[in-house]
Amino acid sequence: MGELAALKTAVIESFGTPCPVIDLDVVERNIARAQQLCDAAGVANRPHIKTHKSPILAKMQIAAGARGITCQKLGEAEVMANAGITDIVIATNLLGAARSGRLAALQRRVALKVCADNPVSLSAYSEAAQRAERPLDVMIECDTGQKRAGVETPREALALAQIIRDNPWLNFAGLLFYPALDSWPQTQVFLDEMTAGLASLSLKHKIISTGGTPNFANIGKLKGATEHRAGTCIFNDRMMIEEKFATLGDCALQVFTSVVSRGGEERGILDAGSKTLTSDTGGLEGFGLIMEHPEARIHKFAEEHGFLDLSRCNNKPVVGDIVRVIPNHVCVAVNMADQLVAVRGGEIAEVIPVAARGMLV
Amino acid sequence: MGELAALKTAVIESFGTPCPVIDLDVVERNIARAQQLCDAAGVANRPHIKTHKSPILAKMQIAAGARGITCQKLGEAEVMANAGITDIVIATNLLGAARSGRLAALQRRVALKVCADNPVSLSAYSEAAQRAERPLDVMIECDTGQKRAGVETPREALALAQIIRDNPWLNFAGLLFYPALDSWPQTQVFLDEMTAGLASLSLKHKIISTGGTPNFANIGKLKGATEHRAGTCIFNDRMMIEEKFATLGDCALQVFTSVVSRGGEERGILDAGSKTLTSDTGGLEGFGLIMEHPEARIHKFAEEHGFLDLSRCNNKPVVGDIVRVIPNHVCVAVNMADQLVAVRGGEIAEVIPVAARGMLV
Repeated sequence: MGELAALKTAVIESFGTPCPVIDLDVVERNIARAQQLCDAAGVANRPHIKTHKSPILAKMQIAAGARGITCQKLGEAEVMANAGITDIVIATNLLGAARSGRLAALQRRVALKVCADNPVSLSAYSEAAQRAERPLDVMIECDTGQKRAGVETPREALALAQIIRDNPWLNFAGLLFYPALDSWPQTQVFLDEMTAGLASLSLKHKIISTGGTPNFANIGKLKGATEHRAGTCIFNDRMMIEEKFATLGDCALQVFTSVVSRGGEERGILDAGSKTLTSDTGGLEGFGLIMEHPEARIHKFAEEHGFLDLSRCNNKPVVGDIVRVIPNHVCVAVNMADQLVAVRGGEIAEVIPVAARGMLV
Repeated sequence: MGELAALKTAVIESFGTPCPVIDLDVVERNIARAQQLCDAAGVANRPHIKTHKSPILAKMQIAAGARGITCQKLGEAEVMANAGITDIVIATNLLGAARSGRLAALQRRVALKVCADNPVSLSAYSEAAQRAERPLDVMIECDTGQKRAGVETPREALALAQIIRDNPWLNFAGLLFYPALDSWPQTQVFLDEMTAGLASLSLKHKIISTGGTPNFANIGKLKGATEHRAGTCIFNDRMMIEEKFATLGDCALQVFTSVVSRGGEERGILDAGSKTLTSDTGGLEGFGLIMEHPEARIHKFAEEHGFLDLSRCNNKPVVGDIVRVIPNHVCVAVNMADQLVAVRGGEIAEVIPVAARGMLV
């Protein structure tokens, strides 16, 4: 039996399928690469843990040189803080968590950096900070064309900065950007205008943060940026291949899944469906790439089944085959699992809990 | 403060947002309705617990008259068995679980009914049953036009029945159908042919199972059917409204979510994204219905954000508003949460763990 066949047998006998499996050698190479890209650009690396949701992997990123971590949810930050990680940016408006007692409770233990794009969130942060008896560091989220969260003009951002400056429970910590791949010039204009405006408020940036794995292509272009937050690059996926950031060999996570049915000549069924890989297409054709049968197409999901169109396959899988699927979007796929099986050199090395999975708040 | 406003405040202060909330009065009404529909048709009710994944809710269904439950994953069956539920059909090919030791381990404790559509799965079941030292009841999954799992002809089904008959570790338990809404006539033809063929093998059905909430419209039509398995009807969702099975008032689950950003006149952002509601559209326009703003459209998701198109709203939500979203597909949304907040009469009554969520195997 070859090494891969032996690994497949070991995975199904120990865990069953479907089973998300990561290759630790690839993970380590990916972590090192992100760090090198940040180092070369002279910005700090603050990986986004939404992709892996694991303190074990976050600590590997910090050991490789990351300044701290980025979270998207308070619950993620709680899990990371419980594991001893203290330099945490939460890169989203935390209004729905701030109004519960949980933001105050965590802020009492760990000085967080949160972000906002409106006065209502600032007001909720101020109340949470008072409850925590510790001022909150607040970054202003700025939008330069993506039409996601973030204020759209330096004027609005400065108005928020002034509210922060005038509130004893809030500290101005900087700006958070998530530029589109082609919007770095207008991001520079935004930042330069802000820098000037902040001076007039006697404020200074501590952090100017950019984000996104595809934006490694632009890293260093924004003059004044101090750190970058990227998540997907630790594992990569079909979207990152499409973005030309990664090759197949850079994809560290594969979902091992069994062919459980071959209802017809041209069709087959995997035991991984939308509750394993999610319906997130990432804008791509099909719901994942099957390593053993790249010409097969996962064209539809039921909750626990992936439906295969095998019409373009000369070599068709048979019932009982275990195949490896690279997800379109790895961040949402990891979030479906309680644990990742980690392999090294073709052998199962450890089981890594996805400790912060399913943190809605 | 009105009752609804008070509930929203209680939810956000106790749990934060986003938060899936179920109304127990509606849940009970939905459970009773499914039972009545089965009773009136003279078939047993075997609800599919994939929708709620909670032993507490499964026991409410059994108390209302259900014969037993249906699971889609071995892990779900483990959780239900741990809670004392023993009459369990697992309505899927369990190959990927059978080849791990878990099927044998559970079968040793509880006599399961599993299903198969191919000889490889039968062989894995036989091995698991031997390991468990207890024969497995096996149903044959039959496809009558959906092109999902299942054998497509009575001839294939009979071949499997013969294998089961001739294997001392397998018991023939019946047939599992999931007919399309318009394929009940051919399902009857399939079943009648099978019944005749089984007689020649000296086999009899114990269970003839049909499935699906929309198929309540056809319940009783298949002569010989003994039980029905439906999942979604306990909560209902936008898909069930679209199918004309449910009204808005029958939708028991709403995701409470905060408006966290209003980046422009025509747009807004919810703190519920694809990691809360999932990217599953269920074939519908938009990713959920906002009760307070039905003319708003959730047109896109980031992982933790829902993007609103407010161009058709006269009355636009403001930052800090808590709104209630009816998911397109409630089964996948519940699977994202660790718990459901249960209310009765407008007040928080209890917290129900989604005990079997994230059971990949």
